[in-house]
Amino acid sequence: MSAVSERALIAAVTERLGRPPGGRLLRGPGDDAAVVRPGGVEVVSVDMVAEGVHFERTTHSARDVGHKALGSALSDVAAMGARPGEAYVGLALPPGTPEAWALELVDGIEALARRSGVAVAGGDVVSASALVISVTVTGWAEAAEHLVSRSGARAGHLVGVTGRLGGAAAGLLLLEGASVGLDEGVREGLLTRHRRPEPRLAAGRALAEAGAAAMIDVSDGVATDAGHLSRESGVALVLELASLPRAAGVDVVAEVVGRDPSRLAATGGEDYELLFTGPAELRDAFEDAGARTGAPVTWLGRVERGRGVRLLDGGGRAVELTGYEHG
Amino acid sequence: MSAVSERALIAAVTERLGRPPGGRLLRGPGDDAAVVRPGGVEVVSVDMVAEGVHFERTTHSARDVGHKALGSALSDVAAMGARPGEAYVGLALPPGTPEAWALELVDGIEALARRSGVAVAGGDVVSASALVISVTVTGWAEAAEHLVSRSGARAGHLVGVTGRLGGAAAGLLLLEGASVGLDEGVREGLLTRHRRPEPRLAAGRALAEAGAAAMIDVSDGVATDAGHLSRESGVALVLELASLPRAAGVDVVAEVVGRDPSRLAATGGEDYELLFTGPAELRDAFEDAGARTGAPVTWLGRVERGRGVRLLDGGGRAVELTGYEHG
Repeated sequence: MSAVSERALIAAVTERLGRPPGGRLLRGPGDDAAVVRPGGVEVVSVDMVAEGVHFERTTHSARDVGHKALGSALSDVAAMGARPGEAYVGLALPPGTPEAWALELVDGIEALARRSGVAVAGGDVVSASALVISVTVTGWAEAAEHLVSRSGARAGHLVGVTGRLGGAAAGLLLLEGASVGLDEGVREGLLTRHRRPEPRLAAGRALAEAGAAAMIDVSDGVATDAGHLSRESGVALVLELASLPRAAGVDVVAEVVGRDPSRLAATGGEDYELLFTGPAELRDAFEDAGARTGAPVTWLGRVERGRGVRLLDGGGRAVELTGYEHG
Repeated sequence: MSAVSERALIAAVTERLGRPPGGRLLRGPGDDAAVVRPGGVEVVSVDMVAEGVHFERTTHSARDVGHKALGSALSDVAAMGARPGEAYVGLALPPGTPEAWALELVDGIEALARRSGVAVAGGDVVSASALVISVTVTGWAEAAEHLVSRSGARAGHLVGVTGRLGGAAAGLLLLEGASVGLDEGVREGLLTRHRRPEPRLAAGRALAEAGAAAMIDVSDGVATDAGHLSRESGVALVLELASLPRAAGVDVVAEVVGRDPSRLAATGGEDYELLFTGPAELRDAFEDAGARTGAPVTWLGRVERGRGVRLLDGGGRAVELTGYEHG
């Protein structure tokens, strides 16, 4: 396989992405900048992933890496309750990176983009001594009031989360060599949670429409991300540790590595589920929004006056987690 | 100096940038994504710079690196003739990067942003084995017709360039150790051209308003960038090599390293001047636009039917440049 030439790669990427601009995208790759016709309000977020930190070429395929880079960025758009818009991809590639590998990475980005209704509208390719992918994504909403920030949690709200937690952390433990007897399907499910996180775009919009008041994506673990919501909203979040919905296989992996399953689910990052709060009277609407979009809602607790996050065990006693600020 | 913690750095950066959102920026750093109220059309461009490729910590201060990362990105906005908008900054930092160094880099970004009317509205900080900065910038225009693409050059147009060329390449030669007796001011001027490229934002807008038909920023050298214009417009560009305006000191540096000054000016990258074409009857308007914005226009040649770039020497003979596709 030939090593990558920046110019050739840009040409190959542009051809691969290749859809003619249309709708909001007036001009795509090929000029000094992409040109976009905006409508309503725009959200913008940047996410970087780096080899040796967020992925390894020994355990992640190029497609995994591309998927993960775009998926983690789109998760922020999901957490705003916005419609996904455009993506701009910066690739820093070490000299000698096989061109086929780089193109497969782009294929991984493009496959998720296409499925998510995202146009890859521009980017940059440079040489560097480490493999780093930077993805800037935009999202759109009719008006700022339709977006869900981190600061809208109020005392009395319910706290819910979509899907199941701990899967990405358990998948990483498997990649790191944890020797666990698991059904092959369960094992693959955990690895996929880690390698190809699925941004909860449909659920984010549905929850926003249902009236979610505050929302954040679970990238650093529920405990840490609840802390962000608490701080930005100026409230306390009280969560029942035993209520955390755990992905299939998490309990078995946790047992093998000698960790408590609930704590693994509370502190494991990169699940990219959505943590949200909203008025109790909208409970049914939230549950319906999650169910309709393949992201069933589990209720974790409530918002109270005060500060910080309180985790309770089954008996209502406070649980101390250590070292969970690892985001 | 303490090594950088991602979370602490994000907090410090946010505080440092610190201006409350206003105008188009509805929400800045601190949520899942920035929120922007668009008007007209948006241009978006991504630029990455990497240690060891675009800068060295031995020859570039942290402020230089920050300036360069944002400056090269904004140059694309200038080349579209757009008003600068927001910037989103991704920092990939090796473990052990001194926090003070990272904050000075942010100061370098912020100083140029402030001076350019740009709001740094979001970003990401991650750990990586190489220092890579990714900057996504937006720009705004009332309508797409006000923007200047690379594809508008037509036979009969004049070809002009702003400012002076070869300065960044000569500055790099000085950094690489070329031993040249130069007036200190001239020397500093060349080093600054390389370390702190100045995006031609005002000139880009003025030239767009004056009726520029095609425009590109000179990041890869005039010869290469003229090739981009030629290809995107489907025309030939005929340029007189001797007409290239050379920065003060370029001739002396070129002589010392045994290179032809005109060729150095034609192939040297990173000057971030603007190369443009437009109808001959607007000649005075273009010259006025450049003069008003501190970016005097020099006429380099004309657009003809055909393909490619033809460089002519003083006697009208074709000049072959080798190895200039180094962008």
